[in-house]
Amino acid sequence: MPQFADRVAKAKRSFIREILKVTADPSVISFAGGLPNPASFPVAEIAAAAAKVLYESGPSALQYSTTEGLLPLRQWIAARYKKTQGMDVRPEQILITTGSQQALDLVAKVVINAGDPVLMEKPGYLGAIQAFSIFRPSWRSVPLEQDGPDLAVFERELEDARLFYAVTSFQNPSGLSYSAEKRAAVAELLASRKVFFLEDDPYGELRFAGTRLPPVYALRPRHSMLLGTFSKVAAPGFRLGWIVADGELMERLVIAKQAADLHTGSLDQMIVYQFLLDNDFDAHVARISQLYGAQCRAMQASIARHFPPEVQVTSPEGGMFLWVTLPEGLSATELLKRSVECKVAFVPGAAFHVDGAGENTLRLNYSNADPETIEEGVKRLAGCLAACMAERKAL
Amino acid sequence: MPQFADRVAKAKRSFIREILKVTADPSVISFAGGLPNPASFPVAEIAAAAAKVLYESGPSALQYSTTEGLLPLRQWIAARYKKTQGMDVRPEQILITTGSQQALDLVAKVVINAGDPVLMEKPGYLGAIQAFSIFRPSWRSVPLEQDGPDLAVFERELEDARLFYAVTSFQNPSGLSYSAEKRAAVAELLASRKVFFLEDDPYGELRFAGTRLPPVYALRPRHSMLLGTFSKVAAPGFRLGWIVADGELMERLVIAKQAADLHTGSLDQMIVYQFLLDNDFDAHVARISQLYGAQCRAMQASIARHFPPEVQVTSPEGGMFLWVTLPEGLSATELLKRSVECKVAFVPGAAFHVDGAGENTLRLNYSNADPETIEEGVKRLAGCLAACMAERKAL
Repeated sequence: MPQFADRVAKAKRSFIREILKVTADPSVISFAGGLPNPASFPVAEIAAAAAKVLYESGPSALQYSTTEGLLPLRQWIAARYKKTQGMDVRPEQILITTGSQQALDLVAKVVINAGDPVLMEKPGYLGAIQAFSIFRPSWRSVPLEQDGPDLAVFERELEDARLFYAVTSFQNPSGLSYSAEKRAAVAELLASRKVFFLEDDPYGELRFAGTRLPPVYALRPRHSMLLGTFSKVAAPGFRLGWIVADGELMERLVIAKQAADLHTGSLDQMIVYQFLLDNDFDAHVARISQLYGAQCRAMQASIARHFPPEVQVTSPEGGMFLWVTLPEGLSATELLKRSVECKVAFVPGAAFHVDGAGENTLRLNYSNADPETIEEGVKRLAGCLAACMAERKAL
Repeated sequence: MPQFADRVAKAKRSFIREILKVTADPSVISFAGGLPNPASFPVAEIAAAAAKVLYESGPSALQYSTTEGLLPLRQWIAARYKKTQGMDVRPEQILITTGSQQALDLVAKVVINAGDPVLMEKPGYLGAIQAFSIFRPSWRSVPLEQDGPDLAVFERELEDARLFYAVTSFQNPSGLSYSAEKRAAVAELLASRKVFFLEDDPYGELRFAGTRLPPVYALRPRHSMLLGTFSKVAAPGFRLGWIVADGELMERLVIAKQAADLHTGSLDQMIVYQFLLDNDFDAHVARISQLYGAQCRAMQASIARHFPPEVQVTSPEGGMFLWVTLPEGLSATELLKRSVECKVAFVPGAAFHVDGAGENTLRLNYSNADPETIEEGVKRLAGCLAACMAERKAL
């Protein structure tokens, strides 16, 4: 057999994807995925938009288009940054990508040489770990506290890093957000270093508590990139995201994008743009946030009822995830084995760590289950957890 | 400024994309692009399919889906190979990609280490040159003759190659196809070597003369990959292609695909599948082939009328391109400068060479212009060519 490239010689499939196969069984209550609630999908509005686009602009919606993406859509995104964040972003600073997962691949291609130090949050987003892994960085990580990264560790680990990657609002997997103070401190440290910064913001619009804070990108735009996506606020089936970047960085991202898939689907871009044009996006986003807020509170209440007090859980102000820390010495991987038998699934936290830590942590998704299902699932999980804890005590 | 990764440090935008900007002027007759004729797009049928999919399966069409792609679509593709080529391909051997450009990126990721010898056809497909370039191979090339590669050079250059990439039917840019004899010879040489083989077949369905031949892949499936796409037979705006591969190769391609964009758009896949289900695909493909056949013959006739006899032109049996070889010493780049002033555009052939050769060659696209426009464009081009030749004689 001819040899594979070094970058995939030892590659493994995503652990989460493997878990999701278990959850295909409809009797399993899954807190494992990261799926938006399909009840939030604007199906009728999308159908109307698709019909309109194909009727009015069929040939151009079906033809090849530009690598940078549909200009009116990029203008809409720029205007949205102005409206929600007061940020001045020009449409030429926006590159449409095939979901924000592609943005992670493009950024990795453009900035990571094999062996380059890449600084991740701890825990960190698994999709980014996977995308960056292909380019074989040397991993660094900075622990997340309740209000953002541990600044002392951050300053130290940033020293020779090529790239810092962060999800600053309602992070996946932790649900944590950077405070205004930490945003400012991080931006200041970044500004004094020759390091690329990649801020990922898939959940920012899905706030159900607290007040919106500007992205760190707005405080340190130089050598920085900001990612966004329509996956959580319209629908993920489109694979429609974007990168905000500038100058030589944008120039190279466009080249990498062209080599990667020429451009993102023309029809998808035009349908989503038409949907945004014809509907009240603020109201739509508010409905999703309310839905997820209710489900988050339901999960927190269920946890408070059924979990022992020594288990720690984050308290997100938005997004789709809760992060659970079990007492030291317990293994979430062991808990998963047991819980799958009780027909409830989640993702063990070790997958979100680049340093092998996190064995006693786990991620719970609340966006894709109603409060009754959440209560039942948490109850089952609590039973498994009690059994694990009793077993450990008996040792 | 922080340093970019070596793989994009010297990256350049596609020359073709830059030319296409000139052709945005509607008074320019463009033979430069590689666009399907929008008159061939089944707009009404796609609109009906989109409406049906969103009405019947809206939530799942808009949700995340599997990395491998929609199973019924993969089953359809497998059945198509059986029907048209007698090939036994299992649906599990098919990975849906975001256009076949993405397939090129994924294959490059999985098999090319920096410095690995990659063997290309000469001339070779520009999109592949771009996708592979990112992974910094060491280039080899084998000249194409009228019936396929020069076998002596092929055998020599294949010796230590990691990958051989070929477009075996109606090649882009040359329009040339491998004969049955050359297919067999190439497959035999490949079978005796530890080398990956990537066969790209975007145009195979678009035959307007001669008889269909099986892909080389069918003769040497081991360590081989076969690419297909809906871009030329449905519409490119979907970005929908696929890779046929097997075993460990497929396993790694799936991992690379997951890191690249999670999966290809669910809605796009379901719309195209519905379109295939509800329409006579053979009749649709036959209509496109007839259209392109007529346009190809029109271009050949115009060339015969207006070009001097010392100019050589290929005679394709399908696809979208003619390849022109000017007398030695003439420069297609110089001709382009002149022809842009006469409002006619094409792509100079040097872009399709990895060895700096091909200065006296050029690619003409005939799929996207009607016979009258073709006649006018070729006439203008012939005028520019005559001027170039006269100028050269005068030197």
